Amino acid sequence: MNQLPIMLISPEERDLRLRAVRRQMRRLGINAMIISDNANLFYLTGRVFTGYAMIWADAAQPPMYFVRRPVGLSGEGVVYIRKPEEIPAHIPGIASGETIGVEMDCMSYSDCCRLTSIFPQVKAVNADAVMRQARAVKTPDQIRLARISGEKQTEAYSVIPSLFTPGMTDVDFQIAIESTLRRHGCLGIFRISGQSMEIFMGNVLAGDNADCPTPYDFAMGGGGQHPSLPVGADGTVIRPGMSVMVDCNGNFTGYMTDMTRVFSCGTLPQLAIDALECSREICRRLADMGREGVEAKALYNEAVEIAREAGLEEYFMGHSQKAGFTGHGVGIEINELPVIAPRSRDILTAGNIIALEPKFVIPGTGAVGIENTYVVRPDGLPMECITNAPEEIISLD
Amino acid sequence: MNQLPIMLISPEERDLRLRAVRRQMRRLGINAMIISDNANLFYLTGRVFTGYAMIWADAAQPPMYFVRRPVGLSGEGVVYIRKPEEIPAHIPGIASGETIGVEMDCMSYSDCCRLTSIFPQVKAVNADAVMRQARAVKTPDQIRLARISGEKQTEAYSVIPSLFTPGMTDVDFQIAIESTLRRHGCLGIFRISGQSMEIFMGNVLAGDNADCPTPYDFAMGGGGQHPSLPVGADGTVIRPGMSVMVDCNGNFTGYMTDMTRVFSCGTLPQLAIDALECSREICRRLADMGREGVEAKALYNEAVEIAREAGLEEYFMGHSQKAGFTGHGVGIEINELPVIAPRSRDILTAGNIIALEPKFVIPGTGAVGIENTYVVRPDGLPMECITNAPEEIISLD
Repeated sequence: MNQLPIMLISPEERDLRLRAVRRQMRRLGINAMIISDNANLFYLTGRVFTGYAMIWADAAQPPMYFVRRPVGLSGEGVVYIRKPEEIPAHIPGIASGETIGVEMDCMSYSDCCRLTSIFPQVKAVNADAVMRQARAVKTPDQIRLARISGEKQTEAYSVIPSLFTPGMTDVDFQIAIESTLRRHGCLGIFRISGQSMEIFMGNVLAGDNADCPTPYDFAMGGGGQHPSLPVGADGTVIRPGMSVMVDCNGNFTGYMTDMTRVFSCGTLPQLAIDALECSREICRRLADMGREGVEAKALYNEAVEIAREAGLEEYFMGHSQKAGFTGHGVGIEINELPVIAPRSRDILTAGNIIALEPKFVIPGTGAVGIENTYVVRPDGLPMECITNAPEEIISLD
Repeated sequence: MNQLPIMLISPEERDLRLRAVRRQMRRLGINAMIISDNANLFYLTGRVFTGYAMIWADAAQPPMYFVRRPVGLSGEGVVYIRKPEEIPAHIPGIASGETIGVEMDCMSYSDCCRLTSIFPQVKAVNADAVMRQARAVKTPDQIRLARISGEKQTEAYSVIPSLFTPGMTDVDFQIAIESTLRRHGCLGIFRISGQSMEIFMGNVLAGDNADCPTPYDFAMGGGGQHPSLPVGADGTVIRPGMSVMVDCNGNFTGYMTDMTRVFSCGTLPQLAIDALECSREICRRLADMGREGVEAKALYNEAVEIAREAGLEEYFMGHSQKAGFTGHGVGIEINELPVIAPRSRDILTAGNIIALEPKFVIPGTGAVGIENTYVVRPDGLPMECITNAPEEIISLD
């Protein structure tokens, strides 16, 4: 059995991420933290394993990795265990006044109780705030990986018009797009934090199906193929006069980009063309506004204001049912911080990666609008777009 | 805005499922239960929504459905809310000696605490045992839906040999299989209970990649395309002498079937052929043994015994890393009850749907073995297979 290193990121990269995590731990008064969520473990080590990473706020105490599966991992701090109750025997004692962080927002109640009962004298606090804040600010290496995803997603999207044949349904079109994305290296999996949102490879919305409300907290809806997954393409035959919005999976490197483009069958009404141009204008304006130190909610308010001035407010971010945001952080998962929403408390920070998706639903036509992924830059520079496919409506005819 | 019925299953079907749920509630002493997991809501209503279903053990109290999204649902017991704190105003009081069930195994600690704090005088207990037991016994209508999945998966699998071209990697082959499944109506999404297991559309394992251990609790491994999703195809070029095991998504109706078949490139050694026949023999024997009232662990023990008698124990259920089960319940999610494992306490019941996957990993060749999905029948009859594709090794040459 070959031994494989637990750490798939460089020591420098690991230290950068640990410093970000420890800064948040100290800010929130957390002494030690036990992490087991797959996305968080991938952030900390560059790989997914079943087990726990344990991080101390005190940098003198190196992290430990308690592994259940797979067999064969090795490296500093690696200990194989069968169950979490074995952890205390391997770590320095935690004093009774100290706090231990566990992932209360993404770990089940049962798992959380089991984990905290192992440290009965210690106050348990929520580690998710730490991990969310740390992961919201990407390192240069993470930005590099997101950039690669953006390039590959752009390449794959350039093929989309050639996949259409007249008479196709939105489902057929989506299947062809999925396959193209996969052949360009898309990993397929679409990671979403939390359990309430589900989607397969993304969203292809043709015509009025875009106005069908879904239970999920995505920007756009769609009735879906089946009531067990009520989102996206619903079997609509793509006909002249319809817009087709494509918002599909950009996960090529473990770090996702999020990009939406609109295709047209036949001629779209001027209202739809105006709305697309308004979406582009919002993206341009927000990309310029989106500098470190700016409030996330200011971007949201500006987007709403531009839509209102264009007389398009009733179509903005949905028609029958509206989404409450125009953008979101993206990284290992599709719903990271910051959130571009009216009550967001987030402040833009250099290293944030943000998807902006000012979209409109035009009854009788469908969804129009673009989505791009941007990096918040240092030194007061405007955001940089990393999803650089052409933004115009692309004809399928 | 059209009103849509919240209930997409017939009144008779709804009552069957409610009776099963209430029987488990009474068995576990739960007076009322608040359900919000997507898979559980789909079981209770035939659709997914964001919100809560509330069920009382007392059948005189009809269920209520507290909906946050989508807009437009209607029906008996439907109440729109913005937050769970609004629930108590709409329901009969719960006495302080009573118990309320919440989904402690699949709901996050934070969400669970928020929900239970709404009912401070009431003892909170785990509703997941109720839902898992109720969902383990499928109704005739659910069996019908699983049967349709089995038929469609069988049709799609019949196309697989035509998708292979020499020089293909396992990833290329998998992408072609994914697309075929989707074009046959597969919904794509692969529902797994819990947060620790992740997979995209299934597992295609060529050659020795089958012996690469993964962190996940699947029967077979594979290094995967990327360390962020370390399972399955890893880019291995499919060469003569390799087996290619295909274990891909059978979700066509919201109810999944699970089927594995093996393909060969060139000639496989006799050991691999013997192991495939042993896998078929285990399936046949377990299908005959698998009658209502039989202990799940007896099936596991029998499988191990057959593998041992055939001299194949060292390859059984993995080689470098072994899986601890040979079968599992399947339905809305891929990992339902009963579990066919050595310490399982489950007893087979008519209506269980069980995937049996006695598999072998042969070093130098790859994974061999079949997987079928079976229905446990009433009246002491043997299990019925609902994934009826040919079981022999199929040549790709």
